[in-house]
Amino acid sequence: MEQVYEYIEANWLDAIDDLKRLLSQPSISAQGTGIQEAAALTAGLLQEYGVPSRILPTPGGPPVVYGELEGDSPFTLLFYNHYDVQPPEPLELWSTPPFEPSIADGKLYARGVSDNKGDIITRLLAVKAFLRARGRLPVSIKFLIEGEEEVGSPHLPAFIRENQALLKSDACLWEGGGVNWDERPTITLGLKGIINVDLEVRGAVRDVHSSLAAIVPNPAWRLIWALNSIKDADENILIAGFYDDVRPPTPEEIEAIEAIPSEEEEMRANLGIERFLKGLKGVGLQLHSILEPACTINGIISGYTGEGSKTVLPCYARAKLDFRLVPDQRPDDIIAKLRKHLEKHGFADVVLSAGEGENPARTPLDSPFARVVSDAAREVYGSEPIIKPGMSGSGPMFSFTDILAIPVASSGVSNPDSRAHAPDENIRLADFILSAKHVAAILDRCKVNL
Amino acid sequence: MEQVYEYIEANWLDAIDDLKRLLSQPSISAQGTGIQEAAALTAGLLQEYGVPSRILPTPGGPPVVYGELEGDSPFTLLFYNHYDVQPPEPLELWSTPPFEPSIADGKLYARGVSDNKGDIITRLLAVKAFLRARGRLPVSIKFLIEGEEEVGSPHLPAFIRENQALLKSDACLWEGGGVNWDERPTITLGLKGIINVDLEVRGAVRDVHSSLAAIVPNPAWRLIWALNSIKDADENILIAGFYDDVRPPTPEEIEAIEAIPSEEEEMRANLGIERFLKGLKGVGLQLHSILEPACTINGIISGYTGEGSKTVLPCYARAKLDFRLVPDQRPDDIIAKLRKHLEKHGFADVVLSAGEGENPARTPLDSPFARVVSDAAREVYGSEPIIKPGMSGSGPMFSFTDILAIPVASSGVSNPDSRAHAPDENIRLADFILSAKHVAAILDRCKVNL
Repeated sequence: MEQVYEYIEANWLDAIDDLKRLLSQPSISAQGTGIQEAAALTAGLLQEYGVPSRILPTPGGPPVVYGELEGDSPFTLLFYNHYDVQPPEPLELWSTPPFEPSIADGKLYARGVSDNKGDIITRLLAVKAFLRARGRLPVSIKFLIEGEEEVGSPHLPAFIRENQALLKSDACLWEGGGVNWDERPTITLGLKGIINVDLEVRGAVRDVHSSLAAIVPNPAWRLIWALNSIKDADENILIAGFYDDVRPPTPEEIEAIEAIPSEEEEMRANLGIERFLKGLKGVGLQLHSILEPACTINGIISGYTGEGSKTVLPCYARAKLDFRLVPDQRPDDIIAKLRKHLEKHGFADVVLSAGEGENPARTPLDSPFARVVSDAAREVYGSEPIIKPGMSGSGPMFSFTDILAIPVASSGVSNPDSRAHAPDENIRLADFILSAKHVAAILDRCKVNL
Repeated sequence: MEQVYEYIEANWLDAIDDLKRLLSQPSISAQGTGIQEAAALTAGLLQEYGVPSRILPTPGGPPVVYGELEGDSPFTLLFYNHYDVQPPEPLELWSTPPFEPSIADGKLYARGVSDNKGDIITRLLAVKAFLRARGRLPVSIKFLIEGEEEVGSPHLPAFIRENQALLKSDACLWEGGGVNWDERPTITLGLKGIINVDLEVRGAVRDVHSSLAAIVPNPAWRLIWALNSIKDADENILIAGFYDDVRPPTPEEIEAIEAIPSEEEEMRANLGIERFLKGLKGVGLQLHSILEPACTINGIISGYTGEGSKTVLPCYARAKLDFRLVPDQRPDDIIAKLRKHLEKHGFADVVLSAGEGENPARTPLDSPFARVVSDAAREVYGSEPIIKPGMSGSGPMFSFTDILAIPVASSGVSNPDSRAHAPDENIRLADFILSAKHVAAILDRCKVNL
């Protein structure tokens, strides 16, 4: 592997230039900005790095950039990435313009550099290093780079179902991840599922004077009572059967979570909160974060919300919620149970609409691929990797673990101050080199160990 | 009285011209527009109609226009009115500009014509009719015309407390009121009290990603639970002691309410609701409307409320409420009980702020002044008056019934389609004449009967 690592060390600055090209192209899926251009640029970069690529349309969605290259072994590693980024707003909080990449203090700043254009280029650099150092890859690879991850990947599950033969692989390296505050690499083996729900109650045809409150139904109160019926003040979700399909963690998963270093003080200070939910601390906090489903009010609106007072009785009230799901909960099942709950509790007037949702996903801790990614990280980073059985976030991982039926592990170029989704998003240049080497080490170990 | 009525019939069009002058002067207390100009114009109109007037400053508030004129009898009738109006918005829904009075189909349209500049001029016209027909008024009169009724009269109670000698009177004719759909005059003897409350809960220092929902407190949920603890889904207000001071209605009050003609179908259709609160109908609906206190959510806001979904955990949540109070509830007492309630139920994190509030007010049905106003209405309108022991709305009536300690009855120039507070506010010209005659008949009967 020496020559491969040497190639990375000798050529990483050229790769950074390519990353800057990719970062200079806005690709904001939520706003439909620059998507086609970013797909074309990404496909071109794959070609430049030696990976034959194609742009595959998805009906109604942004195209998928696909690439594949055969290696010495029939073992095939699938790289999952996305070329879209979060909106850059609020622009005034950026130190430099979000789509004009700039380097300062050993960091590269731009929207999408951490999430996850940096990961696209580290993977390409690792591939190119093998091709230049050895002429061939140790294993076969495929790239699946989608363009709507930041808006919930609504078209990806269908794309994967319809392209199972094309995408057939033995394991998947997920986007995202990096080192923790102690510079230990973190590898994640699962994501929560998610389902977004809108609840709406309507009253009179227009806002009316609040002197009528003794006789005219108030949709804001109806919504309050409906929401209150969904979760109690001790954070118990009260929908009948909500917890039925929660799979108990294995002793190994609990052990892995217990081994995750605590960063709760940093986090508490950063959030500016006195205490975590229910006073959670230490291992309890970590277990809760990774293993518990959640029901969040994302927003609520009704009536007059400006300065001062207005004696108005509102004509509608709306709430947006998301449910974070853990294995083996399913969005459709949760929505059906929520509908039944509202009817049963006398809230037939609450109109429910729900999105597509994403299933939770988890790769077993004892998966050989997880061990390969972990061993490669230990070798490259020189410290003991942190293995997270799951993350608190969500993503389209289920289509890989359950439709393609392959193990998935995530590892990436980020650091705890990378500010994904926020102004001054950044990666450290040192992490860029380490992450490219980690990808190379994974490719090498897949051949030897799998 | 023939000559008095004849004067009104012969000169009402001139009075309409004066009303148009008053209506052309914007006087929007909520926006601080034209207040001083409207006070000066109103004081001038009093002078023109033969009532010596003064503009009295109120510390921190708009001035009060005061006028007085002695009559044949020491009995003194106080006219309560206000020269301010509601904001005219939404402007695009007006058929003609709100501050350019226009006549069409026997109606006069302008902001404030029903509420309550029309009442100012009918009262002045009645006064002038006596002065021109008889040379003197049958009783003494006083005018108190304030400039901030539409924003809750925050400075009026102090003004009245400090000017009790000046304002000393034997009865008060309140602004507002008119005929119902069947052309029957309506006289009201009370108002509900009101207190506005803001509730706020704060969480993290900024909105955070909702993947943290399993461990970070959500102020929106806290607010939901706090609100739910205040009122249950059967509309019971759960604050300990909230109903303690509710004075049971007298048999006469219940009888009077039972005699009020039902207009619930018109109202239900107008509001576009299937049913009233709790399925109330008929007498039950009227009793509830007039006698029951209420707790209204005027508005609520938290987090993301735009299109689509956003996986955000909000950093604050706010609600605006008003409580409508009935005799003998008091705003201060209700706020103290609400504070105690929140603490007792574990919502010490909910920050409560409250306005000044207004006490409820009621004049007894058997008050001789109420009979005078009612008999005068029967004579002028030629139909049986409707007597309402109270209204569902609020106003600064308590300072008159309880500080000045005089009976108060309201009667005015409006009709059920007068659209007070709404676009195309209007009065019917025929009602203008009737209302002026009604005021004259009241003045005459005060001398004879009181």
